[in-house]
Amino acid sequence: MNIKPLADRVVIKMIEQECKNEFGLFLPDSAKEKPQVAEVVAVGPGTKDIKMELKVGDKVICSKYAGTEVKLDDVTYSIMKQNDVLAIVE
Amino acid sequence: MNIKPLADRVVIKMIEQECKNEFGLFLPDSAKEKPQVAEVVAVGPGTKDIKMELKVGDKVICSKYAGTEVKLDDVTYSIMKQNDVLAIVE
Amino acid sequence: MNIKPLADRVVIKMIEQECKNEFGLFLPDSAKEKPQVAEVVAVGPGTKDIKMELKVGDKVICSKYAGTEVKLDDVTYSIMKQNDVLAIVE
Amino acid sequence: MNIKPLADRVVIKMIEQECKNEFGLFLPDSAKEKPQVAEVVAVGPGTKDIKMELKVGDKVICSKYAGTEVKLDDVTYSIMKQNDVLAIVE
Amino acid sequence: MNIKPLADRVVIKMIEQECKNEFGLFLPDSAKEKPQVAEVVAVGPGTKDIKMELKVGDKVICSKYAGTEVKLDDVTYSIMKQNDVLAIVE
Amino acid sequence: MNIKPLADRVVIKMIEQECKNEFGLFLPDSAKEKPQVAEVVAVGPGTKDIKMELKVGDKVICSKYAGTEVKLDDVTYSIMKQNDVLAIVE
Amino acid sequence: MNIKPLADRVVIKMIEQECKNEFGLFLPDSAKEKPQVAEVVAVGPGTKDIKMELKVGDKVICSKYAGTEVKLDDVTYSIMKQNDVLAIVE
Repeated sequence: MNIKPLADRVVIKMIEQECKNEFGLFLPDSAKEKPQVAEVVAVGPGTKDIKMELKVGDKVICSKYAGTEVKLDDVTYSIMKQNDVLAIVE
Repeated sequence: MNIKPLADRVVIKMIEQECKNEFGLFLPDSAKEKPQVAEVVAVGPGTKDIKMELKVGDKVICSKYAGTEVKLDDVTYSIMKQNDVLAIVE
Repeated sequence: MNIKPLADRVVIKMIEQECKNEFGLFLPDSAKEKPQVAEVVAVGPGTKDIKMELKVGDKVICSKYAGTEVKLDDVTYSIMKQNDVLAIVE
Repeated sequence: MNIKPLADRVVIKMIEQECKNEFGLFLPDSAKEKPQVAEVVAVGPGTKDIKMELKVGDKVICSKYAGTEVKLDDVTYSIMKQNDVLAIVE
Repeated sequence: MNIKPLADRVVIKMIEQECKNEFGLFLPDSAKEKPQVAEVVAVGPGTKDIKMELKVGDKVICSKYAGTEVKLDDVTYSIMKQNDVLAIVE
Repeated sequence: MNIKPLADRVVIKMIEQECKNEFGLFLPDSAKEKPQVAEVVAVGPGTKDIKMELKVGDKVICSKYAGTEVKLDDVTYSIMKQNDVLAIVE
Repeated sequence: MNIKPLADRVVIKMIEQECKNEFGLFLPDSAKEKPQVAEVVAVGPGTKDIKMELKVGDKVICSKYAGTEVKLDDVTYSIMKQNDVLAIVE
């Protein structure tokens, strides 16, 4: 099965707490549940005004509360607008 | 009878809980009533600013609370703006 | 007497509960007072940005709470923006 | 004395409850104080985006709560944007 | 001293309660503190989108609560956007 | 040290209560803490939409609550958008 | 590891309280936790509407509450839109 986001949306796969250490990124305690590291798994076609900058495989930082969560085969995905993705982690 | 959505709206037919399993898509418990899988049954003409990306027959994920529900011959439809549809499921 | 809506507004005549059955459209109980079937009786000239898609005689679905109600010779009309009309019923 | 509305505003003169009957228009009880029949007595020059559709002498339906009331020689006028006028009554 | 309003703002001088009678304009009791007659004493240069329609010396009606009051030599002025001026009184 | 405001922002230096008398400007008691006289000390480059009308040295009236205060060598500055400056005092 | 902000966002590194003295900038007590001096460490590509004025190495003043904080190797970064940066300190 495949999720194709519409317009300027992307589908991202949440990365486990443990993986965050692998990236060397530690989120501050007080904001523990806010920013999240995730991997882009699908990218929409964009809109007339918004060109897609993200591509499949990008590791990104985004707010946990942005987007809509869906769960597939026990993996949690989130569908959100590209504009709710804050940055790419390289 | 036929429902023709105006502007950038689409009419979608809710798919039963059971059908979701068929798609292999499980929504997280905490959000059980939020995202929904549905089938597009009618597509509006679009607007000057919004081109319609959806077509009849598309399986889509959308928020249950988006759109306005109407019931016809015991089937529940929802009329919503294309922008409230999150993604196509293939 | 005649009501000519301004700009992108339309005047619609509410259709009685009984007539809804005639259309074969049953609104869900929980939303019994929300969507309504109505008939367009007057259409404004549109605006620079909004072309009128509706014409006199169209049967439409709209939210009961959209628009402003006026009563003339015991018939209830509602003046609303075309954008608050959800779909045409054919 | 003369009131010249600015931009896309119009000045309307409220028409007494009794006159409404003359128009054959009866407002629903529950909304008794909302829509009002009024006569346009002055029209602003419009703006770059809004062309004036109303002219002096037009009978219009508008919301009582739109606009700002002023009283002159015991007549109540209201200064409101053309967009707050719902329809012309002919 | 001179107050030069920026952009699409004007400076107006409030006219005393007594002067309102001179204009023959009586504000309704319930709205006694809302609309006000005032005299334009300075006009800004306008913006790319807003051309100034008001000129120094215009008698205008405006909402008392629009704008920011300043007091100079015991005269109360108000600096407000032209769009908050409702009408010119002639 | 130098503060260079970005975009359509300006940096202004608050002028002491005493200086206001020097300008002959008295703010009304009830609004004592709202409008303020200040001196422009830095001007941003403007944006595509907003041309800077203010220049260094201008005496301006602005709302005390507009902008963000910073303190340098015991002088209080405020960084605000040009649009929050109400008028130039000459 | 590298954080590449998207669109018109920048990544800034908060500068310690002590460093602020080095800049000679003292924030007012009452607003102690609001404006902050920070150093730009990454700049996004900008958008169709927003050209990036900031460059890596710029010392900036920004609101502490703007942006999203992330922590890496015990350094606190904030990802925010360029428009939430108030000024450059030179």
